[in-house]
Amino acid sequence: MKIVLIGAGNVATHLGRKLVEVGEEVVQVFSRNLDNATELATALGARPFDDIYGLTARADLYIIAVSDDAIEEVVKKLGHLPLGEKLVVHTSGATPSKVFEATPALERTGVFYPLQTFTKGKETDFSEVPICVFASQSADLQLLEELARKLSPHVYTVNDAQRAWLHIAAVFVNNFTNHLFEIGHSTLKKQQLPFEMLLPLIRETVAKLDGSSPKFKQTGPAVRQDWNTTERHLTLLNGRGDLQEIYRMLTKHIKRTHADNWKH
Amino acid sequence: MKIVLIGAGNVATHLGRKLVEVGEEVVQVFSRNLDNATELATALGARPFDDIYGLTARADLYIIAVSDDAIEEVVKKLGHLPLGEKLVVHTSGATPSKVFEATPALERTGVFYPLQTFTKGKETDFSEVPICVFASQSADLQLLEELARKLSPHVYTVNDAQRAWLHIAAVFVNNFTNHLFEIGHSTLKKQQLPFEMLLPLIRETVAKLDGSSPKFKQTGPAVRQDWNTTERHLTLLNGRGDLQEIYRMLTKHIKRTHADNWKH
Repeated sequence: MKIVLIGAGNVATHLGRKLVEVGEEVVQVFSRNLDNATELATALGARPFDDIYGLTARADLYIIAVSDDAIEEVVKKLGHLPLGEKLVVHTSGATPSKVFEATPALERTGVFYPLQTFTKGKETDFSEVPICVFASQSADLQLLEELARKLSPHVYTVNDAQRAWLHIAAVFVNNFTNHLFEIGHSTLKKQQLPFEMLLPLIRETVAKLDGSSPKFKQTGPAVRQDWNTTERHLTLLNGRGDLQEIYRMLTKHIKRTHADNWKH
Repeated sequence: MKIVLIGAGNVATHLGRKLVEVGEEVVQVFSRNLDNATELATALGARPFDDIYGLTARADLYIIAVSDDAIEEVVKKLGHLPLGEKLVVHTSGATPSKVFEATPALERTGVFYPLQTFTKGKETDFSEVPICVFASQSADLQLLEELARKLSPHVYTVNDAQRAWLHIAAVFVNNFTNHLFEIGHSTLKKQQLPFEMLLPLIRETVAKLDGSSPKFKQTGPAVRQDWNTTERHLTLLNGRGDLQEIYRMLTKHIKRTHADNWKH
């Protein structure tokens, strides 16, 4: 397949490299920043461009991998190009596929969402990345599934509603979790203790996970109903405003989630 | 050293096994439940007992590894035994060392707190576990440090105030984080999606961590100031009560934490 990558950020870079690795041909890379386009295009053996109207109409698949708030604008511009019969997908977990509806000139559209956090300069093992596909036409869904399976064995058909909730879940387990780590970091720093002290505990918290509900692995004062400890913590957190509130909310929610356990 | 273990739960079990492995002698294991005491004592080549007054006065170190709310009672009972010159420590992150103050008969006291979550039936690599020690007398502190170094290279002297904050930090990065994973699990379950989909993302979130501040690794709508996405998420979370509130609080706190970044 001949593929055009629209975007040269983290997702475009990691996805582009993997596509080339499995034998797909990336023919063009677009970025509003020509340097970025050139860097990625060079790595992929593709041509860079920074004027969206310079895009070739001779590819098979157009992958929009730009920031969420730029997708709509890119889609509109693509509507002015002769791509009516070409498959156009975006890679966003946050963006419904109806972003394409305002541009009926694009007849074949879909989503190709790799559910992972990509870091610049850090290689990603794609064989571990779940890829969520969706398409307006069933033949395209099959095509995207086949392409996805070349990158990873973990391919899921995920509709807009599911993807929206999946994205919320990802915010909780990735973004919010990382922020809890930051709270741990800053708490220790105030006590002249190094963040390294918490890393084994964090790693073990995750190592314990499998496909089953993390509920069964919950530990700590809230699930033990050790309200002496939670009250002592809340007292210490007095004057730490938001942190006290976050502690209170999460403790309350753990209590509610596990209320059923305690009835037995 | 001859050691008495008071408690036969997760901490006592993991700690006891490791102590024997490095050549220490566990002579007695106490539990109010004789079966539990016997099971662990047998594994350690020690004698079990379920009457605290059956405790030998001939050991060098008495390790209290019972649940937090039982420590005070155990300490009081030990005060009635001829242990005045023996070193008595507890293993709790949540309990200040002043729990010993009400029992002045115990002259040599301290804390030996392994900062890890232990799981029944799952082996722990102690060489990765930070051990936080503290003692009322400096010679005992040295003794505890030496013992700790036999178990792990990561030994820290941690006073009561530091340990209290360390415990709070551990609740944030371990207990609360696991609860965020549970929120991810239940959110996906409602959408008929398997929790496995989130595991690679969770693992990568943690794999990115090193000793530096997790702040620099923060991703997601809140740190990008992508309020369109956060508003859409909050709308979807309407009617999910607590979840919406947790989402709002954590988003607000990320925003505040990163406010400085945006001034540049």
